[in-house]
Amino acid sequence: MSATTSATTDVTVRRGGREARRAARAAPLPENMQPVRSGLEGGRYKPLSDADVLKIHNAAIDVLEKIGMADAIPSGIEVMTKAGAILNSNGRLTFPRAVIEDTLAKAARRFPLYGQDPRHDLHPWDKKVYFGTAGAAVHMVDPVTGDYRDSVTKDQFDIARIVDTLDHIHFCQRSVVCRELPDPFEMDFNTCYAAVSGTTKHVGSSWVDPRHLEASLQMLHMIAGSEEKWRERPFVSQSNCFVVPPLKFAQDACRCLEVAVRGGMPVLLLSAGQAGATAPAALAGAIVQEVAECLAGLVYVNAIKPGAPAIFGTWCFVSDLRTGAMSGGSPEQALLSAASAQMAQFYDLTGGTASGMTDSKTPDAQAGYEKAYNHALVGNAGANMIYESAGMHASLLGFCLESLLIDNDIIGATQRTIKGIDVSDEHLSIETIRKTCLEGPGHYLGSEQTLQLMQTEYVYPLVGDRSNPKEWVEQGRPDSVARAQKKLKQIMNNHYPAHIPAAVDDAIRAKFPVRLEREFMRKG
Amino acid sequence: MSATTSATTDVTVRRGGREARRAARAAPLPENMQPVRSGLEGGRYKPLSDADVLKIHNAAIDVLEKIGMADAIPSGIEVMTKAGAILNSNGRLTFPRAVIEDTLAKAARRFPLYGQDPRHDLHPWDKKVYFGTAGAAVHMVDPVTGDYRDSVTKDQFDIARIVDTLDHIHFCQRSVVCRELPDPFEMDFNTCYAAVSGTTKHVGSSWVDPRHLEASLQMLHMIAGSEEKWRERPFVSQSNCFVVPPLKFAQDACRCLEVAVRGGMPVLLLSAGQAGATAPAALAGAIVQEVAECLAGLVYVNAIKPGAPAIFGTWCFVSDLRTGAMSGGSPEQALLSAASAQMAQFYDLTGGTASGMTDSKTPDAQAGYEKAYNHALVGNAGANMIYESAGMHASLLGFCLESLLIDNDIIGATQRTIKGIDVSDEHLSIETIRKTCLEGPGHYLGSEQTLQLMQTEYVYPLVGDRSNPKEWVEQGRPDSVARAQKKLKQIMNNHYPAHIPAAVDDAIRAKFPVRLEREFMRKG
Repeated sequence: MSATTSATTDVTVRRGGREARRAARAAPLPENMQPVRSGLEGGRYKPLSDADVLKIHNAAIDVLEKIGMADAIPSGIEVMTKAGAILNSNGRLTFPRAVIEDTLAKAARRFPLYGQDPRHDLHPWDKKVYFGTAGAAVHMVDPVTGDYRDSVTKDQFDIARIVDTLDHIHFCQRSVVCRELPDPFEMDFNTCYAAVSGTTKHVGSSWVDPRHLEASLQMLHMIAGSEEKWRERPFVSQSNCFVVPPLKFAQDACRCLEVAVRGGMPVLLLSAGQAGATAPAALAGAIVQEVAECLAGLVYVNAIKPGAPAIFGTWCFVSDLRTGAMSGGSPEQALLSAASAQMAQFYDLTGGTASGMTDSKTPDAQAGYEKAYNHALVGNAGANMIYESAGMHASLLGFCLESLLIDNDIIGATQRTIKGIDVSDEHLSIETIRKTCLEGPGHYLGSEQTLQLMQTEYVYPLVGDRSNPKEWVEQGRPDSVARAQKKLKQIMNNHYPAHIPAAVDDAIRAKFPVRLEREFMRKG
Repeated sequence: MSATTSATTDVTVRRGGREARRAARAAPLPENMQPVRSGLEGGRYKPLSDADVLKIHNAAIDVLEKIGMADAIPSGIEVMTKAGAILNSNGRLTFPRAVIEDTLAKAARRFPLYGQDPRHDLHPWDKKVYFGTAGAAVHMVDPVTGDYRDSVTKDQFDIARIVDTLDHIHFCQRSVVCRELPDPFEMDFNTCYAAVSGTTKHVGSSWVDPRHLEASLQMLHMIAGSEEKWRERPFVSQSNCFVVPPLKFAQDACRCLEVAVRGGMPVLLLSAGQAGATAPAALAGAIVQEVAECLAGLVYVNAIKPGAPAIFGTWCFVSDLRTGAMSGGSPEQALLSAASAQMAQFYDLTGGTASGMTDSKTPDAQAGYEKAYNHALVGNAGANMIYESAGMHASLLGFCLESLLIDNDIIGATQRTIKGIDVSDEHLSIETIRKTCLEGPGHYLGSEQTLQLMQTEYVYPLVGDRSNPKEWVEQGRPDSVARAQKKLKQIMNNHYPAHIPAAVDDAIRAKFPVRLEREFMRKG
């Protein structure tokens, strides 16, 4: 009923103010006045009480003291036992409470994650929230035909350069597997190369062998200008699955972790147990196990190098227990990721978790709603680094470029909710209400307050549509995918980053097997 | 990366447990063990601090004391001035703080909203959350062609009988305008008739003239068995837009309000100001104005009949300030509705607000994400009655039957998040983790805990799809709409409620101009 009421009101009263509002909107806003920006402070949603958080912490300590971690590699055993861990008779490393507490006392806090462009530096601590990509999808999704094809290096480059243009995607972790490269070295190296060539935002990548990482570090030194410059502002972090849940170290990943820590590369300590499969089906138990694993990882990192930057990466995943398959879009996932954020806050560590992993194979209503309820809750819980937040489908098996744009709108909207409601005296608006009702036109359309707040308090979508049905029919009834396709084409045809000087790129190509063809990297 | 890891784990270990899990799932669960149910307690998301809530309350009192409400009808002026309101020299009714406080002291609390079937009774107080339909859409949406056609009485009946089958839609307020009925009496009467004939859940409806409501009450008495039985368990509430924001009483609606209160019909005191148009653009100011208006409405209801049941209906809507058009899917909407829930909690009143009003014209990704971030936040804020939560499109201008089913899944998922995380010692799972790691198979797929929790702790979608890409291709790549269409067809072909005895229906048809043809009401 109100839709009709307000529509009528609009028609009769809005004409005068509309032009003024349009003109006001034409002027670009300085960054500090924009309705949303990266790093807004969450924390207004708390799935766990303070007592719950403490219970989970104590249970995790119990798990580390009494059960511990299997399969540590010799170098890991050496540094961790030096730090106080105990290798017990069945070969598991256990961690006395004091070891965890010592680690928490010296762990790195408040370290920025740098972009190649300082404009994109992240400050992921307290309850500040950043969204980015991630994953290792093996398919690219065509949102119209539903075709799933193998992902390749060029896809990773395209993802990076699209992310480079999107306001609400704040970092770019590797999203797809370069499947045309059978050689694991070439795959690891080119994944990182494609990402850092495509964006000046902070990049995350992954390596399966320490030698691949060492070569990639050499490339990153070349881009930075020198090893010292790289170490001053490391603009790539390592996504490291150091654990095979439940409670076993992943040996290859641990070897890569040691190289990253020594090479000045921040490490995302990623534990991705799946509740009901590789973690307890009880959500609280799944969190306990992940917290224990990430605390063990933190002991490891700090035993190698006290205060080395590490992200507390509790990525508790969910199984559909009818089949055992992962359900990244489930509401249980939202609870787990939001609770993870609270655990990182409890430790005052930079927390990383996952949100936005729909089970849908295509950018349909299900993809939209699964991503949105996850983002709304995980974002408002104040997770610092929200991975997997854009582009993903099929519980991480597929990536869709159009979805990057659609998801950018979801994240923008989520950020607006994180920003919250200004309840200053000015915003309470008593005087504005009084003037409007007793002296004014009886509506707020052209009021000074409305003009002032329309850009700073309201966020507008990039591809989302707010036309009325009549206008929409005139536009040819475009749905989200059609609108995203149009915008995507503009970006793909026009945004070719060139932040790495040609001479540096030449030197990289002379030294390493770069497999991303130059013709893909410039407008042709 | 973890997707690959867990997929491998699945393949190697899950075979044994899968059959057991499937068997366990075949048995129906008693209601108290189901993963979600109506009336779960929200409140873990709080966009406003306690201090913010108090500031808004005091500002609303200020507005009522100093600005007041225009356009009260004589009978309203009579009862409200008797209750202490003051008619000032410019014809506005102002409300001293003491009048508001007296009203709040005697206002109805903890009144159930009844269904024709007691199984569907609602208990909307504290922070208990119920979702339902609402609206006055003028179009039915074809989700495949994008066609918008005029809505008719049969559509309202179909909406009601579909809602009747859906677990997560707890009440059925009128959703569409019966546009084939030019006579306002016939329209009001048949809207109510179509809804109460289609579902035994609590119904909301709306009337433009007291005589229409009086006739409808007679029909409701016939269905109840007598006026006394109706008054014992009124199963229809009146959605009443008693205010034309800002701060003017709506005269026709006020006349209907008086009839409803005297007729024992609960009233939804619905204030639907639109921030930036009929309410301040500052979100806090929009809430202040709506709270003031609903408090005035509450004075009115209680002045007619102390303790008459009324729902505190702060439906703060949002304008897209570039055009003045409503934006029901915006993130600002989620903030306003969630904050509204907190204001009703502050007064310990049954609060009603709106969520799920996408701006999208069709059930695409945008529709999914706009509905989901609104539901996730408004639901977790603990709004008691969440209206407009299913089926709506185009900011309330269109209704889509397939979306009812899709939105039912969104609400089911939202309810799972509202249920939260059980952090009992048992769920912390230390012993389960110990057994699995030290004695067991090294995974949780077939564990006793997993089998026990798969139904009580995990919610499964009705139309949402969790198949893998290969299975999905084999199914013909159905998207959300295709899956909803299939399920919708089953419901439409099979669910014909017959809770109103034929003799009663005959009597109603003999006395009133029922325009819903009988052939539409039974399987034919």
